[in-house]
Parts: sequence; structure tokens; C-alpha cells
Amino acid sequence: MKSVGERVPKLDAADKAAGKARYVQDLRLPGMLEAKVLRSTVPHGRIVSVDVSEAWKVRGVRAILTAKDIPAKAWGYAKDTTALKGDRVRRIGDELAAVAATDIEAAIEACERIKVVIEPLPAVYDIEATLAPGAPVLHESKGSNLVQTHHYEHGDVAAAFAKAAKVVEGTFTLPAQQHAALGPVGAVAEWDANGRLTLHDPTQIPFLVQRDLAEALDISPADLRIVQPAIGGAFGARLDLYPHEAIAALLARKAGAPVRLLFSRDEDFQTDPVRPRTIVKLRTAAAADGTLLARDADILVDCGAYVSWGSMTPVVMVNTFGNFYQCPAAKFRARTVWTNTQPTGAFRGFGNPELLFAVETQMDELARALKLDPIEFRLKNANRPEEVTPAGGRITSCGFKEVLEAVKAKLKRPAAPAEPHLKRGIGVAAVFHVGGGARIYRSDGCGATVKVDDFGKATVIVGATDIGQGMETAMAQIAAEELGIPVSMVRVATQADTDVRPWDVGVHASRTTFIAGNAVRLAAKEAKKQIEDARAALKLPPDAPVDKVVRAEHFRQKGRLISASAFYDPPTSMVDKANHGNVSAAYTWGCHGVEVEVDVETGQAVVKRVVAAHDVGRAINPMLVEGQIEGGVVQGLGYAMFEECVLKDGRMQNGFFLDYRIPGIKDVPDIETVLVETGDPEGPFGAKGIGEAPIVPIGPAIANAIADATGVRMREFPMTPERVWRELRNSR
Amino acid sequence: MKSVGERVPKLDAADKAAGKARYVQDLRLPGMLEAKVLRSTVPHGRIVSVDVSEAWKVRGVRAILTAKDIPAKAWGYAKDTTALKGDRVRRIGDELAAVAATDIEAAIEACERIKVVIEPLPAVYDIEATLAPGAPVLHESKGSNLVQTHHYEHGDVAAAFAKAAKVVEGTFTLPAQQHAALGPVGAVAEWDANGRLTLHDPTQIPFLVQRDLAEALDISPADLRIVQPAIGGAFGARLDLYPHEAIAALLARKAGAPVRLLFSRDEDFQTDPVRPRTIVKLRTAAAADGTLLARDADILVDCGAYVSWGSMTPVVMVNTFGNFYQCPAAKFRARTVWTNTQPTGAFRGFGNPELLFAVETQMDELARALKLDPIEFRLKNANRPEEVTPAGGRITSCGFKEVLEAVKAKLKRPAAPAEPHLKRGIGVAAVFHVGGGARIYRSDGCGATVKVDDFGKATVIVGATDIGQGMETAMAQIAAEELGIPVSMVRVATQADTDVRPWDVGVHASRTTFIAGNAVRLAAKEAKKQIEDARAALKLPPDAPVDKVVRAEHFRQKGRLISASAFYDPPTSMVDKANHGNVSAAYTWGCHGVEVEVDVETGQAVVKRVVAAHDVGRAINPMLVEGQIEGGVVQGLGYAMFEECVLKDGRMQNGFFLDYRIPGIKDVPDIETVLVETGDPEGPFGAKGIGEAPIVPIGPAIANAIADATGVRMREFPMTPERVWRELRNSR
Repeated sequence: MKSVGERVPKLDAADKAAGKARYVQDLRLPGMLEAKVLRSTVPHGRIVSVDVSEAWKVRGVRAILTAKDIPAKAWGYAKDTTALKGDRVRRIGDELAAVAATDIEAAIEACERIKVVIEPLPAVYDIEATLAPGAPVLHESKGSNLVQTHHYEHGDVAAAFAKAAKVVEGTFTLPAQQHAALGPVGAVAEWDANGRLTLHDPTQIPFLVQRDLAEALDISPADLRIVQPAIGGAFGARLDLYPHEAIAALLARKAGAPVRLLFSRDEDFQTDPVRPRTIVKLRTAAAADGTLLARDADILVDCGAYVSWGSMTPVVMVNTFGNFYQCPAAKFRARTVWTNTQPTGAFRGFGNPELLFAVETQMDELARALKLDPIEFRLKNANRPEEVTPAGGRITSCGFKEVLEAVKAKLKRPAAPAEPHLKRGIGVAAVFHVGGGARIYRSDGCGATVKVDDFGKATVIVGATDIGQGMETAMAQIAAEELGIPVSMVRVATQADTDVRPWDVGVHASRTTFIAGNAVRLAAKEAKKQIEDARAALKLPPDAPVDKVVRAEHFRQKGRLISASAFYDPPTSMVDKANHGNVSAAYTWGCHGVEVEVDVETGQAVVKRVVAAHDVGRAINPMLVEGQIEGGVVQGLGYAMFEECVLKDGRMQNGFFLDYRIPGIKDVPDIETVLVETGDPEGPFGAKGIGEAPIVPIGPAIANAIADATGVRMREFPMTPERVWRELRNSR
Repeated sequence: MKSVGERVPKLDAADKAAGKARYVQDLRLPGMLEAKVLRSTVPHGRIVSVDVSEAWKVRGVRAILTAKDIPAKAWGYAKDTTALKGDRVRRIGDELAAVAATDIEAAIEACERIKVVIEPLPAVYDIEATLAPGAPVLHESKGSNLVQTHHYEHGDVAAAFAKAAKVVEGTFTLPAQQHAALGPVGAVAEWDANGRLTLHDPTQIPFLVQRDLAEALDISPADLRIVQPAIGGAFGARLDLYPHEAIAALLARKAGAPVRLLFSRDEDFQTDPVRPRTIVKLRTAAAADGTLLARDADILVDCGAYVSWGSMTPVVMVNTFGNFYQCPAAKFRARTVWTNTQPTGAFRGFGNPELLFAVETQMDELARALKLDPIEFRLKNANRPEEVTPAGGRITSCGFKEVLEAVKAKLKRPAAPAEPHLKRGIGVAAVFHVGGGARIYRSDGCGATVKVDDFGKATVIVGATDIGQGMETAMAQIAAEELGIPVSMVRVATQADTDVRPWDVGVHASRTTFIAGNAVRLAAKEAKKQIEDARAALKLPPDAPVDKVVRAEHFRQKGRLISASAFYDPPTSMVDKANHGNVSAAYTWGCHGVEVEVDVETGQAVVKRVVAAHDVGRAINPMLVEGQIEGGVVQGLGYAMFEECVLKDGRMQNGFFLDYRIPGIKDVPDIETVLVETGDPEGPFGAKGIGEAPIVPIGPAIANAIADATGVRMREFPMTPERVWRELRNSR
């Protein structure tokens, strides 16, 4: 192959490095106004009054909205939110009013002049306390703070635990994590004179926003067009409709001018969705020979004040819980809850990092208890190719064995340091993740059109979205390979909007290379067939270049253009009511091995080295795959070691990059990546999705390495020096 | 029919009226520079030196270009131009240098500081004198100022003239006409960091500019993307690549930033192409019974200093000359010439107004000489349906008889005015024009894609360009009709660029409704078939709405999206070397009747009333067709009565709207339009093109009416009071 498998530099890299990419903050439309949202400083309360009369006196103000001015109908996953709040606030940051003005200073000043009276109510922030009797109920019509309960079961769990040689159990606590995307949150809305809305929105789900925003605005989705600027990172944060998108649209309609609403970094940290705080109670049982017998989990997941994707993270947890390892019995309960905190949403890994922190820690504990090598223990219970799991997962390609063996070969126990207060250890953890889409909607498909112009240049118009992962480059390589032309002759129309692009469900679940890649491949294959048919019909030689054939086909009597469209929807199904089913057309495995050094005097654990082996099916672009793995390792390192939203009375205390510590360059260990190519039969050229898996196992691998180094078992993220030090002290 | 034939308001009208449409002057890209071109004030001369050193000292200057800095290869129709001139200037306005700066004032100041030394050469402006021996030759390598000669002949012309009962002859003189589009000329160029150019260009020919500009820049067309902003009128002016487009691109590349080059109105008047000055010498012969016998024409057409479409206007003249009326013998010679004046280009009607001024004047003269009613004389010699002409034209639908009879019925001779110095008269003139494309390239085709989304909204992605004529609305009506959905549920993706859109040759030759309309109809028909196939396969009731069927088809196992593409290239051929052939899939006829009042003391002729009958095949949107006819009448009125580029030593003396007089609202007569619907068999729903025909016959109809009122025969446009007064004086 000539294009697939090549280390093609990202097609958008040069523009991004040169500052030429246009993000939402770079948009300047004629007559555009700037918007600001007035937000609640009270975590829970009854709105008595919102008086905007003084705000109108600020020069340059063009529109002011309160809840009275907008559609009253609640929207969102649990129909529990509106763009502006009219009766009650349920978290610090709730939207009370919004202003559009000729400049941002005027909009801010106008917000400051709005008089708000709120009668405080008792608030609840703790995800266990929120379910206790007497806790303040956020949404009275819902009766309690329980959003929903997810159940799953296979095998005879009670019997398995009863006969087990070894049972381990523990409670694992995971913090809220900020996406910390460098691109600011925002949207630019403009209505044409016919009443049609164009929203410039760095969303991950343009086609779902078209539907959902129309519902929130009470207009027809046919009157809505979503245009995506370059997206400065998303990681799941832009996987739902949030109030700011509706507010920008409503202000623009009221003002009769384009409106840009950009979050400050503080607003982003305080109000944009986060990875949900989660508590995982887990028991795992094994036989004396190392055969895994059973798992039992009871999980609490925070939704914050309004339900978004946070409430669905158990769906991914269940998928791993029921499919990962050959485990004959498993029982799962997860409850999602409302609290007076910021909403929680999707975040790379989507529940899997939370669950596997517990699962992979207990795999390590069991191996140690049974005196087995942790990798051998995993190998013994590993999924195999062509297996059907008790949960209904249909495993096709499976490189679990290979990734475990790769880490085993490359992760060596380091020499003990000379300094007695430094301890070194190694640890491993594995991951199972969807790699061929995830059918959580009725369609998991993507459409693509490939056209080849008179100059032999191919344009790919695909529903998929690039959030930095390299979609454009991967699609160009797939199209180039199928068409037999150089990658430089393929352009992916990334500026296209929902009017022009074929449908796609969005960028999530590591699905784009697999799903969109298959759609592009099918369309390119058909375009190639048109070219070859023309070559044959026009009796052109086999070595006549593509552009010559295309021109000959175009510039003849009854000529035609080369253009083909395809839609790919994977052969999967949604889970049934018992959460059984095969949601993905392929699954992926990985294993991370880490070496840590722990200062037992300070509790500081430093990750020195990571070996990250992943079954990628086939690397369409090894450099991009390595980038995904390295990025996942670093982001997972941040989750495991540094990041945490520190709340006090419902307010995040560390809402700036100085205090909210994502890994810096000095925190990044040596990372050795190993790409295992199993050649998935359904994936495009064998590829499987790899966007999320690398963030998952790094945390438990570090925890297992800390245990290896110190004997101390960490069950809470982030594993800060203070927490490690406390555990060390407790263990003495 | 529900959508075709409806008076749907133009879909872009509300945005344009509200100031929301975005023209090239509205574009603001981050870091965008403004550009200015330094132009020659010498009409012909040798460039001795261009010194830019002082210009660099102006604050804010980011790039300066002279001919030395750009590709030297000549480009254009006759390969006679470059973006910047290095050795010689050949007209006032020639591009000597260009500056990009942070603001336009700095760019202008820098241009003023460039020191240019030019050694003047003798210049020639007159289109007859330029061919005389000893005239200064503009392009020495070409040998003379003759660009090319077009010939055509059928029948025995000499014999026909010899046997004629009546022969009329005359010389007709036509001025240069400015397009006077309200949208300024300009372009915005930006290069991405991979070296690919995006040009925001209100061109009529995006796909040809992709090819031609790549040639001028010496880059691959694959690295060029043309995006059209809203276009503020064009009328043919934007049918070729001109130096400013290349200059914007070259400056942007040099500066490493986006560059906008906008013409001042003065620059537009002085340097943008105009309708060519033309001299038509014509003889026409008829038998005593009113049978047309022969025509003989000898024509001179100005190309200005560099060849653009001006040199091709005889191609359209020939088409009319050989096909219009049943005329058994015809002979035609047209020579196109270089002069030291601004280049000439395409202009609505494209030679036909020039030629038919002569032809239709002589038809009137012959009728009068033979004592025949001018309409009866035309009827006697009129083309008929299903006729093959001596030139090879294949006439299908033909409403010539109907338009003549409509004018006869509606144009009544007015009562004589009471004032003795006022004379009233009536006159008619007819027109023949292409109505089904015009194959001047190897492809006269257009591609279209129609997709229908989950909400039942259809998007039309079509290669065609809207220059104000209503393409968007006509295409929406055609798609809506074929799909069986309301026009409000169709959106035409007018913002799409050459990467995304299927190919089209451009907007010219009244071809868009016919050619693009057929492409859209074919694509919509296929999309409709997909919907109906899905309805049948899914057993949905016949009254299930389209959106429901589309969703059912999409959201099922192995689902698919509704999307179809088509390419329509009409069944025509290019003319042969003798200018015979059938270039259009349909032809159109019209007849204008006018009533004028002439003040014989001042020579002022005022058009009081116009009856404009046109064979439109079928009116997709009668309101838009009426708009085209009214607009054509008014623009043709300007050409006939007011407009003229007054040159002195090669410089246009009346280069502002105050002096260059296009018709104002008070000049517009009552216009009664008559739409004759002949239902063309090849046209979309029977439609034929009507963009140009209405500009053609108004001039000769006025001239004939002046003759009717005063006995004076006008053979020069514009028919100003001075010219009419002189003819009246001469005739006394």
C-alpha cells in the first residue's frame, strides 16, 4: 500500500502551527455583537426577581434576555434545563440573563448592572449524600435526586463469590476532571432575513445539534445550519447541546445581528461539563489457579445540576464490565444523581477510566494474592479472537495476548535507587474499548462523497468531525489509497456545513477512523470504479493518469463527472433493556506498563517510563496513532496524578490553569508505543478506533506500580503526594 | 405543478434588502492586508524603470511586487498579458506594481512613492485606424493589430443581392459600454501553510478561474480553491481571469497573509473590461413580396490592449447571423483588433445587441421600402418550430410567431401630441438568442447533487453561479417540484466552493436555468426515486411525509441516506471551422415594441412605453422572468440612449456614475411583459434561458420608433439628443 500506513504529517498541522487555522474566536462577521451571560453565584435558590432596566442604559447594548423572553419548554437528556433559568438556580454558574452589545466591555458592564434577587435554598454537593432522605431535591418534579439506575448481570455471581479462593474488594473514588481544551468554548449565531439560523459552533455533533438546538429554540431543524470552525480540542465536552449555544442564537435573533458568545477560561472551568465524580465499589473473585470467577460493582455517578452525558457513562462501563476478560459471572449497578454542581458530560474514555481503575487494580491485587505474574494472570483470562462474550459482544480481531506480551517484553524492573527514601516499582494495566463505533443511537453511521475533478484532485466530503485527532489526514490517506493517487491530491472539505455534508452521528466513541473511514473507502472505491469504467470505455491505456481519464470522461459527448457517495453503518445493535448486545463492530485492547519512583518521605510518585501497547487493527497513519497514544497517556496521567476540581460550597476553587494542574512537559515520561496490527476484518484497511483507549489504563498501571514500589494501594485519583503520603503513613 | 410556475420571491432578496448578504467588500479575514495597484497613466510606452525603494519606507507596507517578482509567462486568451507589466504599457491603467499594506491608506501612499519612468510611444485608439499601415503595433510579436478574423457564409450571396427588389445598407457604430455592476471588482486571496490558495472571488466562472489562475501563477490547479461571495452584479464582466485576481494571489503569497484587492469605482470604470466598441457594416436584400434574400456583414470589434472575450463576440453574432429568420444567403466577416484602450469582454447579449441593431434596423427599412407592416414582414420570414437552419441550427420549440403577434396586439399607435415640436412614433425589433446553453467549450455541462436530510429538508449543491439572476430560487423551485416538497424545504448551498461543488462551465449565455436546471432536475428525480423505493420497501403509506420516509430509511439496519448526483451536458456541438453547427439545445425569440416621443427642437427622444414579448419555454418563476425582461430592457435602454465611454487620449473622461449615465428610475418607461410558453422539449419543465435576450431588441426598436416618429434613421448608439438633433438637422 502506498498511502495507508504512511507517516503523513497532519494536513492541518502547518496551518495550526502558523496560526492560520480559524477557531471560533477568530470569526469576525460584519456587524457582529459580543455576548455575556450573567450567572448565578448562589448554588441553589429560588429566583425572586431579575431586573434588567439599568442594564439597558449601558451604551452599545443591543439585546438583553431573561427566562421570560425565551421558549419555556425544558430540553436536554432529562428535559431538565432551559437556556436561561426562570424559577430556580441549581448550581453556581446557572444562566440568569444574557446581554449582546457592540463590545464585550459593554456586555460585561450591562451584566453587572442587572439586579438579581435569589432566595437561597439548602444545597447538596456530595454524590452519596444527595440520595439520603431529607437531602434537598434539585428538580422537584422528579421526586428525588436519582436520575437513573443501570443494571447488568450474567452468570451466578453469588455462587462464584462463594466458591472463590480469593476475593478482593474496595471503594474507588474518582474526581471531576476538566477537559481543559485550549480552544475556548463559544459559538457565533447569525439569522438570515428569511429566519434561518447559521450557528458557527465547534461542536462534536453538528447533526445532533441541528436537531437539539431546533428543539430548544422551538424552530424547525430545516431552518438550522451548523458550521464548524477549526476546533481547539473537545475530548467529549462538545458532545451535547449546552445553554450557551441556545443563548447565542436567541440573542442574535433578538438583536437582529450576528452574536458571538465566548467563554472566559474561568467560565469554561466553572460551568462547562466535566468528567463526573464517580465512586466505584467493586469486588472481584478468582480461583486458586488464577481463573477469574466473578465481579460485582456498585457505582455512583454525578450528573451535576442538569443531566447531560454524565448519566450515560455507565453504559460504557457496562460494556467493559460484561465483555472484558473471560469472566463467567458479573453483576453491575450504577446510579446517576443530581447535585448542586456543574453538569457532567462525556470525556475521552467515557466511564472506562473510572471503572478500569477499580477493575485493573483488583486484577493486580488478585495476581499478587495468588502469587501470579500480573501479565500471566491477565493472559490466562484474556479475551480471544472470534469469541462471543456473555454480554453479547462479538469479538473478531483481538490482539489482547499480543499487547500483554509486548509490555511483558519491554517493561523491565528497574534497579533500586541509591537513595533510601526513593522506591521504584513497575505496574501494568490493560484496557478493553470499543474500536468499531458504539451504537448508542439508532444510527451509528456516517456518509461520504468523493469527487475527482478535472485536475485529478479528489475532494472528500464526509460527515465526520475533526477535533484535532487527525480525521482529515486519515480520510485523505484512505481515499488516496483506494483511488490510487497521492495524498497530496486529496482534500477533505473541512469547512463544509450540515447543509452540504452527509449525516454523521458525531465524533465520539473512537469511531471516526473506523466508521467514517469505511464510508470514505466505499465512496472512493465507487469513484475509482467510475474512473476505471471510463478508462475501459474510452480505451485509454492503463498508465494514463487519473486526471486525463477524468477529463476524457467529462469532455466527451454525454460526458459525466466522477463523483460517488456512500453511507456506512456498522453491523451492530443497540443494547437491550438488560444491557446485553453487540454495540461495536470491533473491539480493541491495550496494555500499559509503567515504571514509577516514589519518594516515601514526601509521597510524591513520579512516572519515569511508560510502555503503551495497543491493538490498532491497522495503523492508517502510525504517526497519528502514536500521537493518540501519547496524548491519551498524558491526559490519563493528569487524571491519575494531578487533576481535580476542588469544590467549596459548590464553587470550584482552582478554576485557572495555574491551580488546575494538567501535565506540563516536565511531567511527561518517556513513552514507548507499540502498535499491534491485527487487521480487523470490518475496519477500513483493517483499522480500529484508538482515540480513547490510551487514556484508560495509565492510571491503574501507575497505582499498581506504586503498590509494587511501596506496598501501598491507592484507591483515589488524583494520587497526589499528600494522598500517597497519608496512605504510606497509615500503612506503617 | 406546485412549485414550478409560482411567483416565489427570490430566496436571497430578503438578505440583500436587509444588508445581510456578504459581498467581497464585506470579507474580513484575520490579519488581512489591503492592496493597491499602481497603474500606468501613459497609454502606450516602454517601461524604463520601476523603483519601489521609497515605497518600502511607508509604515504598514508588507509586500510590493513588480513584474520582476512574478511569473513571466504570458497568459490569457491570446497569451498577451501578465499580471504586472514589465517591458511595455499598452493602455492607461496597465498594472505596473502592487502593494499590500495593513491599511489602504498606506498601500495608496506606497504606490504614490513608486518612481516609474516610461518612454512614450505613439498610440492608436481608433478601431479602423489600428489596422491601417503604419499604425503603432501593440504586441510586436503578433505582427499587426489584427487579433483574429471570423468568417461565415451560406447560400449564394452575390446572386441574391443581384436579384433583390430592394437592398438596404448602412454602417452602424456602437460604443463601449460599462457593466456598471454595483458590486465592486475585487478579490481576497489567502494561502494556507501547505501552499494552497483560496481565492474569494465574485467570478462568473469559478471552475475556469481555478484552471486559468493556476496557469497565471504557475501552480497546480489542484492547489486552488475558488469561493464565491455574494456577487453584486456581473453581466459578463467576471467571465474571464483578469490581472487583479492574480495580483491579489501573488501579494498574499509574498506577504504571507490574506490580501484583499478592491477596485475603486474609478478603477472599475477605467480598467475593467467593457462591451467592445463595434462597427457593423451591413447590407440586407429582399424580394418585392417581402421575402428575405440575403445579408452581408463586415464587422470590426475592439479588443482593447489585451484580448479577452471581446474577441469572441463575433461567435455569437455569427450564430444569430446564420440562424435568425429564414434567410437563404448570408455572408459574414468580423475582425477583432488591438487598440491602446481598456480590454473588452463579455457583456450580456455578447455581440447580439451590436449585430441586431443593424439587422433589425434594416428589417424595418426593408419593410418600409416594400410598404409592408414591419411585423408582417418579420412573420413572413420568421423561423418555425422544428426547422434546421442553413447554419446547422436545430430549432425545436419556437415562439417567434407568438411574440410578434403579441406585440402587434399590444402596441398601438399613439395619438399625435398637441405640441408641434413633439413627435410620437412606434417601432418594433425582434431577437433570436441561445436558450439552451452555448457550447463554446468542449463541455457545456453542469453537475448537481441533491440530498434530503432527516428533517425532509433538501440541499441542492450545484455548480451554477448566481450573479443576481435568481439561480438559487429557480433551482429550489425545480428541486421542490421534482421532489414534491415545498420550496421552503429546499436550500441551495450558495456558499459552497470549487472543492465541494460539482463542475460547471460558468454563468453566461443565458444557460443556467436550462443547463443547471436540468442537472438539478435529474438529481432530484433520482433522489425522489430513492425516497419512493424506500417507501415501498419499508411499506410506508403513500401519504407518509418525506421526512418520515427519509428517517425510516436512514435509521434502520443497513440504512442509507438520500442523496443523488447528476451531470447534464446538452445534446449540442461546437461550431466547425466554418462556424456551422448547433451550439444550443434550444433557441429563444422575442419582440419588443416601443413608443417614443421625440422633441424635434432638442433631439431628445423619450421612450414612453415598451411591450416586451419573449418565448421563455416555460417560466419556472414568472416574477423572476419578468425581472430579467425588465432589467434587460432598462440596461438595453441605457446602451441605446445614454451610455458611452468617452475617450480622450486613451483615458475615459466620464468614469463616475455622475458622468457615465445609466438609466435612472425616471428614465424607465412603462414595460409590459408578455411570456410566451412554448414548452421546450429539452428544457427543465420546458424552460429556456432568458437572461440575455431582453437586452437585445430594445435599442433597434427605439431607433425604429424614432424613424417612425421623425423619418430620421439613427445608426449610432447612444441616441443622445445631440445625435438625434444632428440627424434631424441633416435630414432637413
